[in-house]
Amino acid sequence: MVSSVIPLMNDVGIDMGWRIFHGNPDFFSITKKFHNSLQGESIHFTPMKQQLYEEASMDFSTYTHIDHDCVIVHDPQPLPLIKYKQKKQPWIWRCHVDLTNPNNRVWDYLKGFILRYDMMIVSNEAYLREDLPVEQRVVLPAIDPLSPKNKELPQDLVDKYLEKFGIPTDKPLITQISRFDKWKDPSGVIRVYRKVKEEVDCRLVLCGSMAADDPEGLRIFDEVERECGASTLIRGQFPDIESEEKEEAECVIAGMPHGEEAGDIILITSENNILVNTLQQSSDVIIQKSLREGFGLTVTEALWKGRPVVASNVGGIPTQITNGESGFLVDPHDEDGFVDRIIEVLDDPALGEELGRRGRQTVRERFLITRLIMDYLDILSYTIR
Amino acid sequence: MVSSVIPLMNDVGIDMGWRIFHGNPDFFSITKKFHNSLQGESIHFTPMKQQLYEEASMDFSTYTHIDHDCVIVHDPQPLPLIKYKQKKQPWIWRCHVDLTNPNNRVWDYLKGFILRYDMMIVSNEAYLREDLPVEQRVVLPAIDPLSPKNKELPQDLVDKYLEKFGIPTDKPLITQISRFDKWKDPSGVIRVYRKVKEEVDCRLVLCGSMAADDPEGLRIFDEVERECGASTLIRGQFPDIESEEKEEAECVIAGMPHGEEAGDIILITSENNILVNTLQQSSDVIIQKSLREGFGLTVTEALWKGRPVVASNVGGIPTQITNGESGFLVDPHDEDGFVDRIIEVLDDPALGEELGRRGRQTVRERFLITRLIMDYLDILSYTIR
Repeated sequence: MVSSVIPLMNDVGIDMGWRIFHGNPDFFSITKKFHNSLQGESIHFTPMKQQLYEEASMDFSTYTHIDHDCVIVHDPQPLPLIKYKQKKQPWIWRCHVDLTNPNNRVWDYLKGFILRYDMMIVSNEAYLREDLPVEQRVVLPAIDPLSPKNKELPQDLVDKYLEKFGIPTDKPLITQISRFDKWKDPSGVIRVYRKVKEEVDCRLVLCGSMAADDPEGLRIFDEVERECGASTLIRGQFPDIESEEKEEAECVIAGMPHGEEAGDIILITSENNILVNTLQQSSDVIIQKSLREGFGLTVTEALWKGRPVVASNVGGIPTQITNGESGFLVDPHDEDGFVDRIIEVLDDPALGEELGRRGRQTVRERFLITRLIMDYLDILSYTIR
Repeated sequence: MVSSVIPLMNDVGIDMGWRIFHGNPDFFSITKKFHNSLQGESIHFTPMKQQLYEEASMDFSTYTHIDHDCVIVHDPQPLPLIKYKQKKQPWIWRCHVDLTNPNNRVWDYLKGFILRYDMMIVSNEAYLREDLPVEQRVVLPAIDPLSPKNKELPQDLVDKYLEKFGIPTDKPLITQISRFDKWKDPSGVIRVYRKVKEEVDCRLVLCGSMAADDPEGLRIFDEVERECGASTLIRGQFPDIESEEKEEAECVIAGMPHGEEAGDIILITSENNILVNTLQQSSDVIIQKSLREGFGLTVTEALWKGRPVVASNVGGIPTQITNGESGFLVDPHDEDGFVDRIIEVLDDPALGEELGRRGRQTVRERFLITRLIMDYLDILSYTIR
């Protein structure tokens, strides 16, 4: 998102740069634990972790010269930087983490740094902290409508990607785009899908990137794979950039020899933005059955494609969807509720179109990067006084 | 190395900063192929690759403002940046790649960017290019003697690391520190070791990091593991930072239950700098049986520890070692030569000490970061005229 914001800020006359933080693998393993602990998980919190955490900021400070009128620090990773720089301008900490239930020891420790800042920006009203005597603002996330993930794709490119990843369009398509993560409840999605299929013949696509260094993701993917067992199963591998050219034919789709009929549940592990865009643009229903959610940018992206979304009534999702108008909201544990709403949309394409139209309208008005730019301009003009 | 150079440059009065380049996984997959092709491998060289390669520099240019007196660009990744910036100062391209036998199409393409620079710096006389009408300099690599990998470790920390990774010191230790890569010839090292062991009882440690995304590394590691089969085999896993504290006891060393006698060949896949330092400091002989080598910084690091080094007479290694004085040089395919030299050193510890002393002296005089700083100062004062 930062890389989309900066050219626009430069266009409107703000000379904004971006410095990318540097750390070794130990550092990132520590900050991942900090991140999880801020979201409520337990942590073995040691002086050694604190030392390595702060040292990365100390090192970064030696080769990062700052003569700007304002500094915005994103995420907990470079938070201690302020300790190692002579502060000559307003500093803002942009927090993208859910702060409703942080581990107290980690929060108290990080607060020591946050207190040196002039402002903290969070992504949700619920993340504002009463125990922090620092000015706080809420800035809702946004999407870049011109990025590869969100721009309108020509139909021939859509068709090419569907074919490349072996996704037939002979039946209605239900899609969830999400990492293979317990909080995204992929097993629940499969149960919902199976009930829907008893009424309406359709296909399910679960598409999510999977980091090689995420053992939990691998475990959950294996679980999902087992649950899909009976159905024909396709696992789309990420076709590397080569596939754009000569090697196109070699694109690996395990389990589905070319020309055979595809399975009904399609699992894809990929980070390919054009593929995600293609799937959202081509689906008859988008499902987002999260048990817990931050803001839910995948919902924003789906709404932007003008497709009907049936999603859990959690986190930032109700901020984006008005139930029955711009999509459907369902209690995350009400699987029959998901089933009914999805069937309703599949049975009535005109309803789907109308929900999708209003969903796109909401995003246009409230969740595009242009609104984010306005928020930043407000904050900068307020802070640099 | 950059992160060590910059504080020193700032100390001597040069305001030097460091911007870290940003790219997506596709970009890094492409530049890895470029890198290999510059070292002579074949490549499927397409306009799509060129486009994605240049776009990363274009994006970087939008959020990177430069008002410095000189710009030094490292490696091929950000090379095209010069195309997207108004050049107001000298630009230097610092090339760390072996340019003796590049793929012609890739070289011609990259030359289009290099020609816009004021100077190219390479790491070896042999990499100077006659077909490039740009000023060229040779700057030999160097090590930072105060970094965790090279600073003198207290004996109790050394002992702790040896114990933690299950490395007994009851027999002489021969070590090769290198990625599991065909050019480092780990199989050859094992054959040499087995012949040495017929004469002198000793242990072998092969220690090298292994990137999860390096399928070739994994294949070669498996091969080595198979070859070691008969010997007891220990594979040290990288103990995460946790092990510094409470979880210390949980440090995983597969195959060697605590208290049992360890095997004679120890394979370690780790990036831990303190461990590498420990191994170099604790070995009776360091071997570097590369079939091909760039400069060979692992040799520099070993020499700095004052240990006797028996190494292949390839790449930058003969620049560092005078045969019979500050180490031994052997033809990389002369396995009996390696065997004889290693036995010679193991049989005569005083010889080992003397070689090590002179090796360390060479590094002190020619391959420390202070010499690198001098080279940079010379180049800057010449370039910024």
